[in-house]
Amino acid sequence: MPPALARIAAALPDTVPFVAPEAIERRLGQRFRARLGANESGFGPSPKVVDAIRSAAAEAWMYCDPEMFDLRQAIAARAGVAPRNVAIGEGIDGIMGNIARLWLDPGDVVVTSRGAYPTFIYHAVGFGGRMVYADYRDDREDLDALLDLARRERARIVYLCNPDNPMGSWWPANEVAAFIEALPEQTMLILDEAYGETAPEGVLPPLAPERPNVLRLRTFSKAYGLAGQRVGYAIGEPGNVRAFDRVRNHFGVNRLGQVAALAALDDPAYLDRVVGDISAARDRIAAIAGDSGLVALPSATNFVAIDCGRDGDFALAVLRALEALGVFVRKPMVPPLDRCIRISAAPAAELDVLAECLPLALERVRAHLPGTSQ
Amino acid sequence: MPPALARIAAALPDTVPFVAPEAIERRLGQRFRARLGANESGFGPSPKVVDAIRSAAAEAWMYCDPEMFDLRQAIAARAGVAPRNVAIGEGIDGIMGNIARLWLDPGDVVVTSRGAYPTFIYHAVGFGGRMVYADYRDDREDLDALLDLARRERARIVYLCNPDNPMGSWWPANEVAAFIEALPEQTMLILDEAYGETAPEGVLPPLAPERPNVLRLRTFSKAYGLAGQRVGYAIGEPGNVRAFDRVRNHFGVNRLGQVAALAALDDPAYLDRVVGDISAARDRIAAIAGDSGLVALPSATNFVAIDCGRDGDFALAVLRALEALGVFVRKPMVPPLDRCIRISAAPAAELDVLAECLPLALERVRAHLPGTSQ
Repeated sequence: MPPALARIAAALPDTVPFVAPEAIERRLGQRFRARLGANESGFGPSPKVVDAIRSAAAEAWMYCDPEMFDLRQAIAARAGVAPRNVAIGEGIDGIMGNIARLWLDPGDVVVTSRGAYPTFIYHAVGFGGRMVYADYRDDREDLDALLDLARRERARIVYLCNPDNPMGSWWPANEVAAFIEALPEQTMLILDEAYGETAPEGVLPPLAPERPNVLRLRTFSKAYGLAGQRVGYAIGEPGNVRAFDRVRNHFGVNRLGQVAALAALDDPAYLDRVVGDISAARDRIAAIAGDSGLVALPSATNFVAIDCGRDGDFALAVLRALEALGVFVRKPMVPPLDRCIRISAAPAAELDVLAECLPLALERVRAHLPGTSQ
Repeated sequence: MPPALARIAAALPDTVPFVAPEAIERRLGQRFRARLGANESGFGPSPKVVDAIRSAAAEAWMYCDPEMFDLRQAIAARAGVAPRNVAIGEGIDGIMGNIARLWLDPGDVVVTSRGAYPTFIYHAVGFGGRMVYADYRDDREDLDALLDLARRERARIVYLCNPDNPMGSWWPANEVAAFIEALPEQTMLILDEAYGETAPEGVLPPLAPERPNVLRLRTFSKAYGLAGQRVGYAIGEPGNVRAFDRVRNHFGVNRLGQVAALAALDDPAYLDRVVGDISAARDRIAAIAGDSGLVALPSATNFVAIDCGRDGDFALAVLRALEALGVFVRKPMVPPLDRCIRISAAPAAELDVLAECLPLALERVRAHLPGTSQ
């Protein structure tokens, strides 16, 4: 008999939040021609960031600064808060794990939307959270329903992503601010703003970093083009920020990750340019979808959800056909969101591949639909 | 009232396992001339590793392969086990956190040595483990005492570091193998072999990767010179290895970390050379200690514990004097180990600084000792 797993761990499923494109490539035996599924930024990081990584490569023998002093200062200055309001972690994913550990006892209720970010749910369940879901309404998270559940269930944590993943939709800042005001003070709101940099004006509520029941999550993985480096941060009340020190892997944000994030903050002009490129890429994706008779949903993120016009099985078939053609995309799995596929903003060359392959994929899928004439 | 912390988190202390050299530098207002405290490898990674990082820097926009397929294959091939026996994580520290989460329920007993690796204890306590300590004997971990405690306390986890940190001492493989055989089968042994590469022949027991109650921990942070990249691994029984997938931060080992570790495994000649350099550096550190009338303990690691010949206060004063002179070292804090300071193997230029500063540091400390003539 092997040693028994702890009670919570023993009850967890073997499934993982995401299948990686690399795993699909190994299964298909070929590399993707276009990598458009993980909401990475194919525009890449700033050239100055790449230079900074290269310059620091030979220093990889040293542990990082576990206090991340310089990076905290820089993030705080950029956000207009104090360093004591900034907790940095191994991407938003790593921070979410620590949030669940810090604020959930087994059996505590966590409220979010059915179809919300799988990794958040993975971590909440992973620490024994009891998930209670609201449904999306009109392809947006339903603030009224989330608030109602939070109150009724005395939720320890509410998770809201704005702008939203996987739909790309958003609530204006004033509605989010009203939602925050209405939450019970013992409920911690995890406000995931991973896509904040690509949102139009008026979507992110002003930071109120001394508020004790809100953590705002940001990342270098999206607009900054550094998904592979694993650097995210939370902005919150200093006592909550300090709590992370009780549980985090102190040297976990690696040395070159810190170097890269610091250099990225130092090149705001590049960020502005990429945000423009992402906006243009969203328009192009919408046009490509339209050319095939599909409808792109409005997006404030670095991806576009495309309504494939039928049910989830149809959209899944489109996704599989795109995969077979060398195009990696992902899709929501919960109805009715699952009628969509989700396509990341990317440089022109990759969107050219999409423009070539989407009509082919649709043709293949429709050819196999029952009752469709050839 | 801010939202309440979870029960375990609320009870945790605010202390952190290690104060970083960067934090000391900020306090002292100067950079260290020699960084000899964290058992990093100042010899650095292989130049081929540095090249590999630089070549991959522009790909940092992509998430890593969360299955770490290529790296698992390479680690397995090098270790002579199957990929299903290899779990990779964000350094041994990250793996230890997941081990505590996977195999500890609150209140479960964890047995280790008083003065053992603080980060292991941090994670075990962090998941509610109840620590039970054996004392070191003759500057080695006391296998008989650990075994006795494991049996008597029905320990869920026993932690043993061989070769040992912080003393540099070791048990021969046959003694460790006998220890493993004698452990209760429901007790998981965490055998930390972070310093395995620098150990002489006959210290690491043969791998028996199908054994269900042992996890062997290895790292790229020490001899491979990649502490800043955060890549460690566990070798164990496949069911135990799969268990990590239930709780780990799947994208946590970052892309350039995987690139670096893979390139490091591909340059065994460099590793051999560094292991020789480390051995020579140990001899030099012992000679420097001897020149000041101090005794270096035998070491199978990439550091040397130096017996300062008096009590812990004296050794701490030596450490502080070295710090003030620009030399970063660390020391054990538990008696009687605390009579020692711990100095990492390093290139000649840094050991020259040590040779210059150790006599000065001792002079300063002795000048302030009560009852010492001037």
